[in-house]
Amino acid sequence: MEPMDVDAAVFDVFGTLTDWRAGVTAELAAAGTRTGLRADWAAVADAWRGRYRPNLLKVLGGELPHCGLDELHRIMLDEVLAQQGLDAFTEADRADLVRAWHRLPAWPDAGPGLDRLRESPLLTATLSNGGVGLLARLTKHAGLRFDCVLSAELARSYKPDPKVYLKAAELLAVPPHRLLMVACHPDDLQAAAGAGLRTAYIPRPEWGPRTTPADPPAGVDLVADDVRDLARQLTAQPPARG
Amino acid sequence: MEPMDVDAAVFDVFGTLTDWRAGVTAELAAAGTRTGLRADWAAVADAWRGRYRPNLLKVLGGELPHCGLDELHRIMLDEVLAQQGLDAFTEADRADLVRAWHRLPAWPDAGPGLDRLRESPLLTATLSNGGVGLLARLTKHAGLRFDCVLSAELARSYKPDPKVYLKAAELLAVPPHRLLMVACHPDDLQAAAGAGLRTAYIPRPEWGPRTTPADPPAGVDLVADDVRDLARQLTAQPPARG
Repeated sequence: MEPMDVDAAVFDVFGTLTDWRAGVTAELAAAGTRTGLRADWAAVADAWRGRYRPNLLKVLGGELPHCGLDELHRIMLDEVLAQQGLDAFTEADRADLVRAWHRLPAWPDAGPGLDRLRESPLLTATLSNGGVGLLARLTKHAGLRFDCVLSAELARSYKPDPKVYLKAAELLAVPPHRLLMVACHPDDLQAAAGAGLRTAYIPRPEWGPRTTPADPPAGVDLVADDVRDLARQLTAQPPARG
Repeated sequence: MEPMDVDAAVFDVFGTLTDWRAGVTAELAAAGTRTGLRADWAAVADAWRGRYRPNLLKVLGGELPHCGLDELHRIMLDEVLAQQGLDAFTEADRADLVRAWHRLPAWPDAGPGLDRLRESPLLTATLSNGGVGLLARLTKHAGLRFDCVLSAELARSYKPDPKVYLKAAELLAVPPHRLLMVACHPDDLQAAAGAGLRTAYIPRPEWGPRTTPADPPAGVDLVADDVRDLARQLTAQPPARG
């Protein structure tokens, strides 16, 4: 691989920088205890997240009307709770559980790696399907510091719609080929590459510690162990050419 | 004044957080030296900035087509250089001078004050007529750290259009009356108040050390000496009511 020559790096957030499964499972369990309910809360979290991709694709295909991610999370939560016989959760519980996605824990390497990147000339930003307000709260809560917060909301769409990646390049005022998309999801990276961006893959066991991360997509520009390793690779001096 | 009960604070950038006059004057002088030109460079900077407000109002009134702030800065620079007999500046000089607005120095209190605010639960963001890319570069260069970068560009307009303030509230997902606009420009604060925001005024000698800052606008919710003082006022415990 060539040394990476980019002006900015944008990061997926759910899975790539934050451990949604640990955060959502803990909040479901706490809400369940308050309500006197028992369940395999990690399985409930997985079922909730499992509805995400098919529903996004329905929104992008026009089968569902466009709505914000909080609203989509709420619809999917109601479906999962009904399916699993957890109807006892109140309106207030459900509204609060949607906000669990605003206060997820970061993977331990993410904050230090981003801080190191922020000291380089590279611009750093989020690029997530979460809304701007969600991302500002989540990154503040999780100690993830960026130069800019970008969201699919600003393109009024969702990844993997190419419009989202191109809107990020436009707003940062960089050409798409000088913008790096960082994610643990192969389909996110493939769509970014299709829009002309460079891509970096980070493996994450996002479905739990006993699961195996996806393989990196074909043609990815860079593979890093985690965000610290990404920062090392992106800020290393390129070898002298002679 | 009541203790301020808000969820987020958005900041004007040119003048309120950065000393555009010092930054632009220094870059004009350096470019002039390279080109062998002599002039009162602070007066050139003032003439350049002096064209800003009337031209913005022309854009908002539909007399000029909407364009990004970089483009507007370039048009105004060409006018000022022609008027002052400084035609010797090359295309490359002019393009570089437009980028002087991307690397202005911060007022000394701004970075520490913002860092203190970021440690509080309050969300902090820019709200400037500069574009998202300009603001990400400028805040990174100047050491101004925010939870979010918001720009009039996201409302496809310019302050003082009420749409800009309402778009900021929408994107941060806070009601307008729980959003605080911080600025040194009375017209910015009056427009924000008209859109339902709370307002904080900071005096700045933005037209040079021998000039007097504007008076705070009537009805402003809070007056602070600088951003450190603002942070002290916003993060102080409200007095116990009894």
